[in-house]
Amino acid sequence: MQYPEPIAKLIDSYTKLPGIGAKTASRLAFYTLGMDQEDVRDFASALATVKDSITFCDICGNITTKDENPCAICSDPSRDQSIVLVLQNPKDVMAMEQTGEYHGLYHVLNGVISPSSGTGPEDINLPALIKRLSKDEAIQEVIVGTNANTDGEATAMYLARLLKPANIKVTRLATGLAVGADIDYADQLTLIKSIEGRNEL
Amino acid sequence: MQYPEPIAKLIDSYTKLPGIGAKTASRLAFYTLGMDQEDVRDFASALATVKDSITFCDICGNITTKDENPCAICSDPSRDQSIVLVLQNPKDVMAMEQTGEYHGLYHVLNGVISPSSGTGPEDINLPALIKRLSKDEAIQEVIVGTNANTDGEATAMYLARLLKPANIKVTRLATGLAVGADIDYADQLTLIKSIEGRNEL
Repeated sequence: MQYPEPIAKLIDSYTKLPGIGAKTASRLAFYTLGMDQEDVRDFASALATVKDSITFCDICGNITTKDENPCAICSDPSRDQSIVLVLQNPKDVMAMEQTGEYHGLYHVLNGVISPSSGTGPEDINLPALIKRLSKDEAIQEVIVGTNANTDGEATAMYLARLLKPANIKVTRLATGLAVGADIDYADQLTLIKSIEGRNEL
Repeated sequence: MQYPEPIAKLIDSYTKLPGIGAKTASRLAFYTLGMDQEDVRDFASALATVKDSITFCDICGNITTKDENPCAICSDPSRDQSIVLVLQNPKDVMAMEQTGEYHGLYHVLNGVISPSSGTGPEDINLPALIKRLSKDEAIQEVIVGTNANTDGEATAMYLARLLKPANIKVTRLATGLAVGADIDYADQLTLIKSIEGRNEL
């Protein structure tokens, strides 16, 4: 016995999402069946339009709508035009923006250099950054904000070596203890980094 | 800063699903952005059509398409017309059918009597069962297959008291099921044992 086709198709679609197996997918499908008609319609139309209306900003590579390219941040003259924070993906931009403490520009790599999975500099939005830096003379500092893991560090090192000869200041986000972290729960590498990067009080 | 509207809307829709919080929703939305155009289109159309094309079988209350009402099981003359298995929801029917050991009819309550959450017999598909039993003289046995938890047991007791005076044999799935377990999560052997070992109430 099979579920009626419309349900089976929906279960199948849910199964294609990451981390959602057959059981969860059928639970979601039945939940969908009980949702407000309007919510389901909104969901369907959000799905139908998202791929057509979202594009990557021509300047920074962050996601934006096709009507707004360059993106809102790149076209905001009040942002500090002399500093660019290089991040791995659009969600990182959102996390940084939510701090309210960074007022410069961004560059989104939409990936990271990863020798282990065969991703090189040409496979991510890195050539565009080099081009951008060579054209835009206002930029004086590049902060590398890739994740604090092996691939992120490799990407940071690559960028530093590439940009230093061009006389651009390249900095890296600080590594150390997370705010609120217990020292006895922190891993050894983090502790080593926190000692190395200690600041005078 | 907000995500571009099409992404924000999609995140919002994902958040409405059970067990999906803000972080997971945005992860799913970005994943969706990277999915095949066709998969996303199928997903959207599955959502758009599911509520309009799925209905409840006029006889048993199981889900079916609007084109096929009564449902495939109710209109199958090869099924044993003398026995009705009462289940809480359509997923339970699927679980039972997958054992291949039950050949009778079903009645889906689409809920359960739950004094704690104020759900009474009139709030679920139970009056239709009473009506069905009074009309259909072929039915000689009703197996109560509600979940093996408090609400399921309460519903079973209620049905037994209601149907016994009408000279209908009322049985309950055997206690092969672990107490507290949901039927659609049970393994097939447990389900088969529970059909074989049903007891009269």
